[in-house]
Amino acid sequence: MSKQSRRQFIAAAGKTAAVTGIATLTGATAMAAKPVPKVFVHHVYFWLNNPDSQEDKAKLIAGLQKLAVTAKTIQQHHIGLPSTTNRDVIDRSYAVSWLLFFKNKAEQDIYQTDPAHLNFIKECSSVWKKVIVYDSEDL
Amino acid sequence: MSKQSRRQFIAAAGKTAAVTGIATLTGATAMAAKPVPKVFVHHVYFWLNNPDSQEDKAKLIAGLQKLAVTAKTIQQHHIGLPSTTNRDVIDRSYAVSWLLFFKNKAEQDIYQTDPAHLNFIKECSSVWKKVIVYDSEDL
Repeated sequence: MSKQSRRQFIAAAGKTAAVTGIATLTGATAMAAKPVPKVFVHHVYFWLNNPDSQEDKAKLIAGLQKLAVTAKTIQQHHIGLPSTTNRDVIDRSYAVSWLLFFKNKAEQDIYQTDPAHLNFIKECSSVWKKVIVYDSEDL
Repeated sequence: MSKQSRRQFIAAAGKTAAVTGIATLTGATAMAAKPVPKVFVHHVYFWLNNPDSQEDKAKLIAGLQKLAVTAKTIQQHHIGLPSTTNRDVIDRSYAVSWLLFFKNKAEQDIYQTDPAHLNFIKECSSVWKKVIVYDSEDL
């Protein structure tokens, strides 16, 4: 390879690296769109003993926020409140929605006995009267 | 500003730009992990008229798979089946879980009257006897 060719090659490689950088960002965006990786979806809905207690709701939310960053196997979390959507088929009676993605069932099983999870239950379970859990695994 | 100072300033600005570039990539990675962007979570659970009919379940799943790629505002979807997890608080009586992420409530509202969605209901509603919908908006 001549010095001139090598220079052109290096310049081209530089451009390729730049393009690759852009492609990586595009890839990250694509991952956030459809289709998505298969996951274990753990969705918990909480009903409070005192539904009108903003203090109790805040305590539960703070507990979940702490849990989200301390539990080891959580891949993604969403803490939500009922939307204003209102149709016959919609259940909007719960206080807080806690949606978790795990890599697989084994990692969800680890979460169940994670000290961070057990500590959350110890600290916060006094505020809820009912939870419903739906565990589903992607097709 | 002296020439020397300006040179130092420009060099420092270059470093800042480089650091900013790294921060942006780190930000993109963080978006894929926790915490995640705020979204509208629309989670539907289906119960079938004939829970033992694999044909009906397959028809529903095929309908959802088609809907996932034809509805305009869906950002992310998960079609799931009940896991084998089994505790008192877990409801595993449903047949299929349909979890959608929308950018916001307005985009979910568009989905409700999207022709692709209406067509799905027309084609598949005969197989289910009950749906429960939980709509939640990220804190």
